[in-house]
Amino acid sequence: MKIYFSGSIRGGRENVEIYRELIEYLNQNNEVLTKHIGDKDLSVDGQTELSDAEIRKRDIDWMKEADLVIAETSNPSLGVGYELAYAEKINKPVLILHNKRTKLSAMINGTEYFKDINYYSSIEEARHILGEKVQNYL
Amino acid sequence: MKIYFSGSIRGGRENVEIYRELIEYLNQNNEVLTKHIGDKDLSVDGQTELSDAEIRKRDIDWMKEADLVIAETSNPSLGVGYELAYAEKINKPVLILHNKRTKLSAMINGTEYFKDINYYSSIEEARHILGEKVQNYL
Repeated sequence: MKIYFSGSIRGGRENVEIYRELIEYLNQNNEVLTKHIGDKDLSVDGQTELSDAEIRKRDIDWMKEADLVIAETSNPSLGVGYELAYAEKINKPVLILHNKRTKLSAMINGTEYFKDINYYSSIEEARHILGEKVQNYL
Repeated sequence: MKIYFSGSIRGGRENVEIYRELIEYLNQNNEVLTKHIGDKDLSVDGQTELSDAEIRKRDIDWMKEADLVIAETSNPSLGVGYELAYAEKINKPVLILHNKRTKLSAMINGTEYFKDINYYSSIEEARHILGEKVQNYL
């Protein structure tokens, strides 16, 4: 499967190690189109070698190409919020992972389209959720 | 004018004082539908007396009713990102205010629909921008 993994860049890179591990795990049996999200060398400034319009176009094209959007929502992010709404707009399946430490946005949690919202405490638990659930989207 | 003011709640309340001052300023000549965004007593947990589905429905109804969406994007927020995409979807005019200290999301800055993006350093400057620009949406 082709997966669009959505995580925070300019909203903060605190969870980059979680993104990296989950993307590595997903890549064993799938193709993650947005591997750069888990790149530890990618700073909060994002990809400065591309214009924002180029980044936006590439990401939207990737989302359209993907079979599934997986959003790690623990770090607040405008981009992730926008991408969730865009996935809803184009009717792309969405799986959400959210660390139990914080409450998920009411706007996301209260939107009927997002049915597959999964709370986790540890990276092992997050991987386990993906191992169980991603195959259901085949 | 009816204004939908969008700011972070569960993404973090660090900028609540900015939201409060801007909403107070806007309310002098307009009606801000989302005044609770600037309520200092509203914590990062949000409005727990309503279900998330109720909050979502109320907010979407308010956005549809509004003449203009004003988003303060300095604090990363899933809800604000979602709302920006929703405003684009229903073709609602959007004015963005962003503090110069951080870079705005590439996904937002790179989206052609968001043409009115305004960077500010001080609350006075943010108020001045609103004073100059909001009337253009009448």
